[in-house]
Amino acid sequence: MNFKVRAARKEDCKEISRMIMELAVYEKMADQVKTSHEELERDGFSPNPFYECLIAEVPDEHKTKDGYTVVGYALYFYTYSTWKGRSVYMEDLYVMPDFRGKGIGKGLMAKVAQVGVEKQCVRLQLSVLEWNKPSLDFYIAKGAEDLTAKEGWHFLRFDGQTLDTLAKEAPKD
Amino acid sequence: MNFKVRAARKEDCKEISRMIMELAVYEKMADQVKTSHEELERDGFSPNPFYECLIAEVPDEHKTKDGYTVVGYALYFYTYSTWKGRSVYMEDLYVMPDFRGKGIGKGLMAKVAQVGVEKQCVRLQLSVLEWNKPSLDFYIAKGAEDLTAKEGWHFLRFDGQTLDTLAKEAPKD
Repeated sequence: MNFKVRAARKEDCKEISRMIMELAVYEKMADQVKTSHEELERDGFSPNPFYECLIAEVPDEHKTKDGYTVVGYALYFYTYSTWKGRSVYMEDLYVMPDFRGKGIGKGLMAKVAQVGVEKQCVRLQLSVLEWNKPSLDFYIAKGAEDLTAKEGWHFLRFDGQTLDTLAKEAPKD
Repeated sequence: MNFKVRAARKEDCKEISRMIMELAVYEKMADQVKTSHEELERDGFSPNPFYECLIAEVPDEHKTKDGYTVVGYALYFYTYSTWKGRSVYMEDLYVMPDFRGKGIGKGLMAKVAQVGVEKQCVRLQLSVLEWNKPSLDFYIAKGAEDLTAKEGWHFLRFDGQTLDTLAKEAPKD
């Protein structure tokens, strides 16, 4: 199947928002999605954007029964290693179920890698849940190293009350 | 001990570079550091910077025997959750050994949290090696959740040849 991968535009945010929700529904976590397409527009399409996004489009003749031609996305941003420099981090990679197994996910990920390399990034990083064996196997098969398994990296988070408490303890300027 | 936490300026990059190396030496990984202070200047102090940095300074009377008054840093950048929105990620937190146990590390981290909250970030995230028990305990004591232990998040990386190969497989525009 023909498909095209291109940089998302501001007017794609409704479609991206729809797919973010589809992915969350699939993961039975729909109630966790707090972002709206307006926030996606604000955060991705203003100066110093917080993320960039690629979308995969199929020709009109392959549109879904609901009329969608945007069938996948990869959302990413730039991070920094104090040892190695610029890196790119892929936060989400999603392809609608009917369009899987056609190289679209691989195409999106490869394009994120290409965009990163063009920006002199030396790493492409991402996180996967260990029970999500199909995804883990997909990335490992493409050459990713599992740094949690290999080196013991653990991912920590402050949010809600713990983040607020911490912020309030900041030393005065 | 009095100390001040402030945003790093371009001219602080030599000091930041020195401390990045100190941290790597402590971890017996000094040969892994490939960034120079020139790269830190370029990547942190141009439009759309790849990172931001805070430094901790002590008054002249507490300077080290080598004459340093910049004794710690926290390097961070912004990331994005498609479910929750803006987040801040703390890549490095370092305080010189003679200045530990004085609240400087906590002050730097709290300031990162404050800067993040001011930018409407809903999370402060970071990664720790599981064998680094003192650090892990420090963050957990401050309220961080260990998402690798709790939810099974694994951290994956493409770099070097695997990144190049992937980038070359990107679909044509």
